[in-house]
Amino acid sequence: MGQGLRLRRGGGQAREPRVSPGRRIINAEKSEFNEDQAACGQLCIRRCEFGAEEDQEWLTLCPEEFLTGHYWALFDGHGGPAAAILAANTLHSCLRRQLEAVVEGMVALQPPMHLSGRCVCPSDPQFVEEKGIRAEDLVIGALENAFQECDEVIGRELEASGQVGGCTALVAVFLQGKLYVANAGDSRAILVRKDEVRPLSSEFTPETERQRIQQLAFVYPELLAGEFTRLEFPRRLKGDDLGQKVLFRDHHMRGWSYKCVEKSDLKYPLIHGQGRQARLLGTLAVSRGLGDHQLRVLDTNIQLKPFLLSVPQLELQEEDVVVMATDGLWDVLSNEQVARLVRSFLPGNQEDPHRYCSFWGPAWCQQQHQEVVMAEKTALMMSPAQGRWSEWGCLKLLWGVTGGPSKSLGLEIPTVQPVALPC
Amino acid sequence: MGQGLRLRRGGGQAREPRVSPGRRIINAEKSEFNEDQAACGQLCIRRCEFGAEEDQEWLTLCPEEFLTGHYWALFDGHGGPAAAILAANTLHSCLRRQLEAVVEGMVALQPPMHLSGRCVCPSDPQFVEEKGIRAEDLVIGALENAFQECDEVIGRELEASGQVGGCTALVAVFLQGKLYVANAGDSRAILVRKDEVRPLSSEFTPETERQRIQQLAFVYPELLAGEFTRLEFPRRLKGDDLGQKVLFRDHHMRGWSYKCVEKSDLKYPLIHGQGRQARLLGTLAVSRGLGDHQLRVLDTNIQLKPFLLSVPQLELQEEDVVVMATDGLWDVLSNEQVARLVRSFLPGNQEDPHRYCSFWGPAWCQQQHQEVVMAEKTALMMSPAQGRWSEWGCLKLLWGVTGGPSKSLGLEIPTVQPVALPC
Repeated sequence: MGQGLRLRRGGGQAREPRVSPGRRIINAEKSEFNEDQAACGQLCIRRCEFGAEEDQEWLTLCPEEFLTGHYWALFDGHGGPAAAILAANTLHSCLRRQLEAVVEGMVALQPPMHLSGRCVCPSDPQFVEEKGIRAEDLVIGALENAFQECDEVIGRELEASGQVGGCTALVAVFLQGKLYVANAGDSRAILVRKDEVRPLSSEFTPETERQRIQQLAFVYPELLAGEFTRLEFPRRLKGDDLGQKVLFRDHHMRGWSYKCVEKSDLKYPLIHGQGRQARLLGTLAVSRGLGDHQLRVLDTNIQLKPFLLSVPQLELQEEDVVVMATDGLWDVLSNEQVARLVRSFLPGNQEDPHRYCSFWGPAWCQQQHQEVVMAEKTALMMSPAQGRWSEWGCLKLLWGVTGGPSKSLGLEIPTVQPVALPC
Repeated sequence: MGQGLRLRRGGGQAREPRVSPGRRIINAEKSEFNEDQAACGQLCIRRCEFGAEEDQEWLTLCPEEFLTGHYWALFDGHGGPAAAILAANTLHSCLRRQLEAVVEGMVALQPPMHLSGRCVCPSDPQFVEEKGIRAEDLVIGALENAFQECDEVIGRELEASGQVGGCTALVAVFLQGKLYVANAGDSRAILVRKDEVRPLSSEFTPETERQRIQQLAFVYPELLAGEFTRLEFPRRLKGDDLGQKVLFRDHHMRGWSYKCVEKSDLKYPLIHGQGRQARLLGTLAVSRGLGDHQLRVLDTNIQLKPFLLSVPQLELQEEDVVVMATDGLWDVLSNEQVARLVRSFLPGNQEDPHRYCSFWGPAWCQQQHQEVVMAEKTALMMSPAQGRWSEWGCLKLLWGVTGGPSKSLGLEIPTVQPVALPC
């Protein structure tokens, strides 16, 4: 296997959990530590003001807080908790820096072509208008750049400490009356309204990433490292299938066809398994978000992991509730089931100032009886509409309920730290 | 510029048409010939039967017709009409061959793992079930493979005749009670119902393809041929912009940000212009479908053109009408406007056996008065529900109305041929 490509086969394979009565297990015994992380808090953006002189030093930072936003994030690690911890401690700072770099454009009626406000070409506003560029696009661009920057930080830190691994990243930002949701990986955010439940993110999974990775393997057969076949089959083929016409699909196909099985088709398939058990190249890492810098095709800039990112943004109504959770939750509950739990709990608990936190207690205890496999799950529920951003609660399953109404701590983000659990 | 990459800059640039009174113009004077093609007819699929003995020769073709489908297609050429003519004469044969290769699987209750029906592994049906593979997926796979095969034929033929160019491809197939729509490029099909209008295809345009091409240019800077800059700006930058912070976006961004302009940013931008006037790498070709084999990144398998393809399929209702058209139509009319024209014309002309043909006459003459720029447009309207597949009409604008109820000609596809027009 080439030096630039080190695949950890089987590292993320699902196993049947061995449950002993009276013993609590972590993440279906798939990992030694809880690899989920959460972070939330206030996002204070300082103003970048234009200097008096338009020279190379025309940007001066003014220390006063200018815009305030709110930030919630979940990170589901794999291959160890390092990447998720780094992301929980870093991403909000990257985002703040990126927002501060464009904040003058964000508060303008229309982002100016030049950040200095100087008009080089009289029809510049018209060019910006025709491209349909709005202030919201600068927030989306800042989120996209923050993910990139955070990923680079994680890459450097992990390399320096000789660690590997990666994590998903699901981020919700409430800013200037709008909610932005950015996602890389298979966590999910939903919006719960009285008579509507709407997904706020789309997931990257081995199945959604299949064609992209097959296409890369078509261009770079080195990616298959002599171990995998590029084609997808309903199951791994064996000697008895040789010469038969079997169902398959390649990078250009969403549909299926038949092909005559050759010896090279008997290798390990690039995509293996179905649904949430599916793996690409035998690992989860290629369909996740941050980190995993070891997964790079030899001597190229091509990264296997997905980057980025759907960033829907919407104006919130007063009673809107947002639930964000890692895949451990969505494995056992549908969007509609979660929405029903929220709708049945919140109205009867209007007076409880910690209701967004205590929600996770009774509602979840009830659920637990139905579930045998306790995969790691972390979830946040909040009501981010103006003036109520501080109402949120966090669940870290098998660690008990943590979190509660957050405090405004300026630029400090209170990170929900992992708690050691005896196993 | 490298030998594998020959970009025709400006070849597809939009120009202001010079309209002389009393003179008819072709395609806003952008091309010498009409580059649109259409093809429609019956698709007769023969059965591939299993031989008595399971040896290497177990497939024998039985000459009888087995399944009958219906086929409509539009091709919008660029860089000359050659690719569109080849596609109109070839794609249906490719599709028939691909369907015949899998037809046994298509008529089974569930496509078998092995086309021979032999069960190598007892749980094979379960693997197929878990992957969710249905008979429809074989039709989608056949369409995808037919596009690939047709593209290879076009590549060979154009190379042999020393020609270049490419075309969009929009194909509707009605088979076993279902409609399948496959699209590469910026043509569009819509479904018109009494109280609903629904797009049946999604378009590939310079704007939808922007991130993919920027990503390729990030990996292969050779693609930019020293002439282009990878970044998108609201307009082409000039000397006065140097050192200023201007709006831009790169391959990982759907949003926008600001960057300090360097000298290399002053090159021709990879994406230029807005909306339907937008060009990628100065040409339309990279966001279209078939042909354009000269657009290939040096010494790699990477093709710039988009391949493939959204293939929605749906069960039709009796009164459903489908309208397919090249971009010339959608430039001047919205989906809703076309749906209104259809709904206002058809009910009053129930008795006219040629109503799907004559629709294009009065409805379109009325439209023409409103339009000055007469871009080439080709459109088909049909009602493909069972038993009424033969009701269709075709418009080739500025060539007058051609087509009419088609005849069942077995495997022959009556192609609407281009008609020379004096200019």
